[in-house]
Parts: sequence; structure tokens; C-alpha cells
Amino acid sequence: MNYAAVKGTRDFLPDQMLKRNFIFDTISHIYTLHGFLPIETPALENLSTLMGKYGEEGDKLLFKILNSGNFTEKTDIVAYKNDYKRLTTQISEKGLRYDLTVPFARFVVNHRNDLVFPFKRYQIQPVWRADRPQKGRYREFYQCDADIIGSDSLLNEMELLEIITEVFNSFGLKVVIKINNRKILAAIAEMLGKNEQLLDITTAIDKLDKIGLENVIDELKSKEFKDCEIDRLKPILLLNGSNENKISVLHKLFNDIEIGKKGLEELEKLFHFSAVLTSTTKIDFDLTLARGLNYYTGTIIEVKSTDVAIGSLVGGGRYDNLTGIFGLPNVSGVGISFGADRIYDCLEQLNLFPSTLTQTTQILFINFGEKEVAYSLQLANLLRKEGISCEIYPDNIKLKKQMSYANSHNIRYVALIGENEMREQKIMIKDMQSGEQQLLTVNEVKNIF
Amino acid sequence: MNYAAVKGTRDFLPDQMLKRNFIFDTISHIYTLHGFLPIETPALENLSTLMGKYGEEGDKLLFKILNSGNFTEKTDIVAYKNDYKRLTTQISEKGLRYDLTVPFARFVVNHRNDLVFPFKRYQIQPVWRADRPQKGRYREFYQCDADIIGSDSLLNEMELLEIITEVFNSFGLKVVIKINNRKILAAIAEMLGKNEQLLDITTAIDKLDKIGLENVIDELKSKEFKDCEIDRLKPILLLNGSNENKISVLHKLFNDIEIGKKGLEELEKLFHFSAVLTSTTKIDFDLTLARGLNYYTGTIIEVKSTDVAIGSLVGGGRYDNLTGIFGLPNVSGVGISFGADRIYDCLEQLNLFPSTLTQTTQILFINFGEKEVAYSLQLANLLRKEGISCEIYPDNIKLKKQMSYANSHNIRYVALIGENEMREQKIMIKDMQSGEQQLLTVNEVKNIF
Repeated sequence: MNYAAVKGTRDFLPDQMLKRNFIFDTISHIYTLHGFLPIETPALENLSTLMGKYGEEGDKLLFKILNSGNFTEKTDIVAYKNDYKRLTTQISEKGLRYDLTVPFARFVVNHRNDLVFPFKRYQIQPVWRADRPQKGRYREFYQCDADIIGSDSLLNEMELLEIITEVFNSFGLKVVIKINNRKILAAIAEMLGKNEQLLDITTAIDKLDKIGLENVIDELKSKEFKDCEIDRLKPILLLNGSNENKISVLHKLFNDIEIGKKGLEELEKLFHFSAVLTSTTKIDFDLTLARGLNYYTGTIIEVKSTDVAIGSLVGGGRYDNLTGIFGLPNVSGVGISFGADRIYDCLEQLNLFPSTLTQTTQILFINFGEKEVAYSLQLANLLRKEGISCEIYPDNIKLKKQMSYANSHNIRYVALIGENEMREQKIMIKDMQSGEQQLLTVNEVKNIF
Repeated sequence: MNYAAVKGTRDFLPDQMLKRNFIFDTISHIYTLHGFLPIETPALENLSTLMGKYGEEGDKLLFKILNSGNFTEKTDIVAYKNDYKRLTTQISEKGLRYDLTVPFARFVVNHRNDLVFPFKRYQIQPVWRADRPQKGRYREFYQCDADIIGSDSLLNEMELLEIITEVFNSFGLKVVIKINNRKILAAIAEMLGKNEQLLDITTAIDKLDKIGLENVIDELKSKEFKDCEIDRLKPILLLNGSNENKISVLHKLFNDIEIGKKGLEELEKLFHFSAVLTSTTKIDFDLTLARGLNYYTGTIIEVKSTDVAIGSLVGGGRYDNLTGIFGLPNVSGVGISFGADRIYDCLEQLNLFPSTLTQTTQILFINFGEKEVAYSLQLANLLRKEGISCEIYPDNIKLKKQMSYANSHNIRYVALIGENEMREQKIMIKDMQSGEQQLLTVNEVKNIF
């Protein structure tokens, strides 16, 4: 028998948990400092809520729950024997959430009368995808989302950029924040009359560094771009230099394209705000950034590590119609999502987790027998009231084995209580790091920490 | 369209989340003070891991996941059209965890070479049961478990009793801890030669207060208890008084029943330990406590509120064979599980949640326009570095509306920044409680908190 976790899912051992909790606690603490409030939604959602929200591929990747009881009773399963998709709709009504965004949209529509707008929520919960498991891709993983809805002010984008900066500063992890604006991409497409080929254009820009201008032009030609269109695209392909420079070139090109001018204005405002905060991470205007083109309508955000070759650590952007799918139109919002697993991998690789993280118990009381234990129980109780974490070794076994427990748990101090200590109302404390022993009063022990 | 959460599951709004997190944080903090380490297991488990572990009823209540892709391909669903249970095994291989105990047992077996024993873990995660939803019974709810495995010392039980005391003291919630011992119940059954009717005996003892001795005896007769057996049971039915008194009566009755004497010894040792800690909650020896008779082998623990009529708030006990179901015998352990939902209901009913819990943002900066916002961004950034949570209202709208946002979010201080404040490098702070306004420097603002 195989008792491993389901393929593509993971058990988390204490050391991993302490590190993961450090990531979640840091992120939620900074969300809270910015006035974001926690919410949670259930793991189970009605399939009517989930289906059709993530494209055809997404529908396939939803984990679907078999209806309870005799699920064959209410349907003629034989009639569907060659059509598993239709059979699924007959025998499964619920599924596991695929992301936090769609459940959040449902939540907003459902509770709109109980919420005060602008509503700033954060949500840290697992999501599930029936993906083929592979290295770095899991079927169950956490998302750490924050969104502000009900306000279209760019100050909200600015706040999210600040949060990103503060989170990665806390981790000591160097990153670059890339931003783009859907309106600018739309303007480029409009300029060429190529609204449907937005992605081909951004892909071409993206490849410039790797394959050179000639090859990019060949590729565009193979995608039915005409010479005159490529000529108009050239200044964009060759766009480089500072953010200001890029913006000024585009301003000229977008002379008469309203949506493009609006996009550039939004971008400039963000740069203006962020210039106020000298501590903010470098923000790069990156025209190739094209994530979430089917839902983002304004700012697009992505964060990459500068030191680890790994996918994006944060993604986000502005959407003008989050809750439209559930019948509540005109709710504008902007959000980001931290990828906890990738951040974990970066911190691990760069050795950035605080070394104290796995030192959870501060004092281990050695078990020398019943009388000593009774005395230790009282002392440990007193120390815990001061916030000092203590364990009493449960069994009266060889000292060496108890000491080895302390070592394997990274416990710095060991308390040795014998006749002498009980008579003098003191504690013999051994520092496992230095090997030193000291006979201390309870108050003196408190002062070690 | 209905956009509510799935029946029997819940969305948690910010106020509820802050209260729930208070409960979870308190429990996990106290677990940590006692040296328990966090672990997590996936929501999805193989059905081979879960089936048969919770009885026939439990098997029915497992949420089962439909296999991905064309699940009809590998099986002849027509052949199973009248047998949904066998069909289920053909089209579903995974399910949602039903509790934290069975996944923990699998975890221990799977990772036994990476764990140091005694292993003390806590685990706070949701579980799912396909129950018919009703008031107070949910299909998705959290369990907060702690277990110590690999040690049969009673000090472990003692530690769990201390944890229970400390948690409810933190909440300010008065409870009574009831304990019993499976060995004592076994001895009573052995005394009567009625090993199979253990539950009838405890039920009878339990009913004594409500229906009186005569009716209890009638009931026992209807369950085929003979007169001589009832006579032998009488001193047990009539057992009352202090813990010591009950133990002393049972000592006499168990004269030659080894297992009973062992059970009483264990009980006495726990009372002896707990007498050392004057702060410990009252512990009642309750012979009618018969939870988990099919897996607990020693101490049985249950906690009830003394002020709210509600089911047990904590359940737990010792089991001698946690991992036997997965092929690893002789792993003794003892554990408890806090019921977060019931604790929530008690704290809510008795108004015991700290009133500051929902005051998350400390200062709201009023938005008077772009120049003021740029200045506010810097100030808010400085204050957050001191751990003070700040928001800047994102839109430049009427003061009244911004003030009402502060009120509805319980924000105590509002920062009003105009020309004057910017020139003097100060902040006008309005205390929303007293209505007072003060012109302060950043340092003076820090000192408010």
C-alpha cells in the first residue's frame, strides 16, 4: 500500500510549515497595515458558479464532486455513456474552487448590502486544479490575494505597489516590479487595425532581445502582418531606455488615439506617486507584459526576482467588471496575488529564512522522575505565562536520549532539576550552544529571553 | 441565479474572520508555548486512505471527487447502473478529508523516518462531511487538533489538560473538564461479563439524574440485564461525591480486575499532577463519558461550557494504535481537538470577544486632492514602519462620505491634511471617539498608540 499524499499534493512537515507561516504572516501583516480585511470563502462552490469562468481548459481542470447518495437514481446514466461531459453535469453539482477571484466575485454580489465600498479584502486560502502534476506545479496550492473594489482611483494601484515593496523588503528579496497598461496595448493594436492580434504583437516585442529584429519581423510576416504595419510597429519594437523615454515616444505615436493617451496618463500618474516614496522598489514599464489580457482593463502588474530564475512572484491588475459575470455590473477593482510557493523557493535558495524560525521551544525540562516532574510542571507553567515556550520531556529515560531530543528540535536551553535545585528553588539551565551551565532563579531565567 | 455559498458551507465576512482568527491564533499560540509543531496535510486524500475508517455512515459522508478526464472510458458504467456504490469506486479515486486524525496517521506512517519521537504536532485545517445541513452543523468546518505520539506517559495527558485550561482562561470562558478512562469502563463490563454492552451501561449511568434509579433499572432489564447483574451495577449507578470518593469506591469493586486498577491508577496520577497546578480548571471524573469508545483505549477527555448550553467544546483521548490501520503498529498517542465553531458561538453569546478585535485600521487619511495625497503617502509610509496601520481614502470625494467610511470601519483616528499642515510638516488628527482635534508632529502621532 502507498500512503504518500495524493500525487500533485503535499504534506507539510513542521520546518516547512514554520517557513510557510512566516510567508503568510508577513503578507497578511502588511495587508493589515494597509487596511485590508480578511475574508474566507468555502472550498466547495456550485459548478454553476465556476464553469465557464476559466475557459474550456479551466473547465477541464476543475475538481468535481460526485453528488451524495445514490447519484444514479435521478438520471439515466446509460443514456450518457458515450458523453462523459454531459454525464458529469448529471452526477456532479459542486466543485473545488480554482482560484480566489471568482469566489470573491460571488461573495461581493452575495454580500453587497453588508459591505462598505471601497472594499479592501485579503484572502489566503488553497485552490485546486486537476493539472498533470510536474515539478513546481501542484494540484493544491495557496493563493494570497488582495483586492480593492468599488474605486477606480490609481491610488489603489499605488497602494498595491507599496505592499509589494514592503513584503519583499521584509523578506530581503530583491525584485523588479513590471507594469504595463492594457489601454496602451489596445492603442497599439488600434494603431495597426489589429485588435485581434494583440498577443502576437506583445510576443514579438518580447522576443526582440533573444532573436533580433530581423527574425521578429519574419515572424510577424508569417502571421500575416503587412510591410506597412511592420513599419508602423518598428518604433515600438525598438522602444527602450528609461520609463520616461518610452512614455514620450508613445505619446507621439498615440497622437490621436484616445485610449492610448489615457493609458499613458495612468502610467505617468503611478510613476509620479511612486517618486514620492524613495523606498519603493524599481518599477519598470514593460510593454511586453501581457498577463490576463482577457480580464485586465487597465494597469497590469508582475513581479520577478532579480536573483532567482523563476516565474513571476506576484501578478495582478485592474479589471473593470469583476462581478459582471454574476449580474452586478460596473464594479471596478484592482488586485494582486502573491505566489507563496515560488516565494518559498526563492527564500530557500537564497537562504533568506530567519534562522530562528525553527527554534520554537525555548526550554526543555529534563525528566528525572515524578517528584522532579511535579516541580517542573509548576516552573514551566510560570515561564509560559511570560511567553516562554517550554516542554517537559514526557518519559523518564536516559539523559542522552532526552538531550538528543533537544538537539534535534533546535532547543537552545535545557533545564536540569534535581534535589539540589528543588531545595534551593532554582533551575540549572544549560545553554546547548555554549555548553555552559548556570544555576538561576525563575526571574533570572525569564531575563535570558 | 443563486449566488449564495453552497448549502452547509459559509462565507466569512471580515468581522467574523477577525473573531475566528482570534480563536485560531490563541489556540495555536498556546500549542506553540507547549512545544507543539504545526503540520498540514492536503484536502485531497486517496479514497483507499479514507474509506472504512469512519464506519459505514462515515463512508457515505465522504465527499468523493470525480476522476479527471473521460472517466467513463476505463469502466463499463452500464454494468454498474444499479449499483452506485460500486460505480463510485470505478469513477472516483480521491475524496476530501473527513477529519484530521486519519490523514495524520497516514502522515506519520509516510514520514516516520523524518520525524523525531515523541512527536507533538498541531494542525488547524478545514474538514468536509456530506451531512444534511442543519443549524450548527456544517459541511465544511475547521478542526484544531493537537496530538503527542510515541510516548505513553501520562504527562502528555497532563499537558493537554493544561493547554485546555490556558486556552479557556485566555478566552475568559468558564468550562468544566470531564475525564474518564476506557480501562475503567472495560473493568465494569468485565465485572458483569457484559463486554458488548458497555454503551448500555454508560447510557444507564448517564440517565440516572434525569429519570431516577427505578426507571434506569427497568431500562437495563429491557436490555437483558439480569437482577444479579443489576445488583452488582448499583454501587456504580449510585456513585457520587468527590473524585477521590468515586475512585475509592471503584477501587473496592475492582479488587481483582487488573485493567480497572490500572485505569484508576492512571486517573489518580492525573489528579495528582493537576493538584500541583493551582490554576488548572476543575477536572471532573465522569463515568458516563463514553466518547470514541471504538478507538480510545485510556484517558477520555471532554470539555463543556458551564454558562452556555451547547455540545462539547473539546474532545480527546488516548489511543494505543493510531497508525495500525496503515501498517505501523504500537504507536501510542493522545490528542485533543477544539471545536472552533462552538467556541465562537459561546464567545459571541457571552460577549467575550475583545472589543478592539475589529479595530484594524488605526488612522484614515482624508483625501483632499493630489498634492495632499502625495504628502499623505509619505506620512502613512512612515507610520506603517512603526506598525501603525493606515489607509488613505482612495477618492477625492465629499468629506462626509470619507468620515462615514472611518466610522463604519471602527477607525478611531482621522488625519486631515491641508495647506497649513503641509507647510508646518504636521498632521491634524481627529479622535473620532471624543471629537477632539490636535495638530501633531509625526513623532507625536506615533506616541498616541
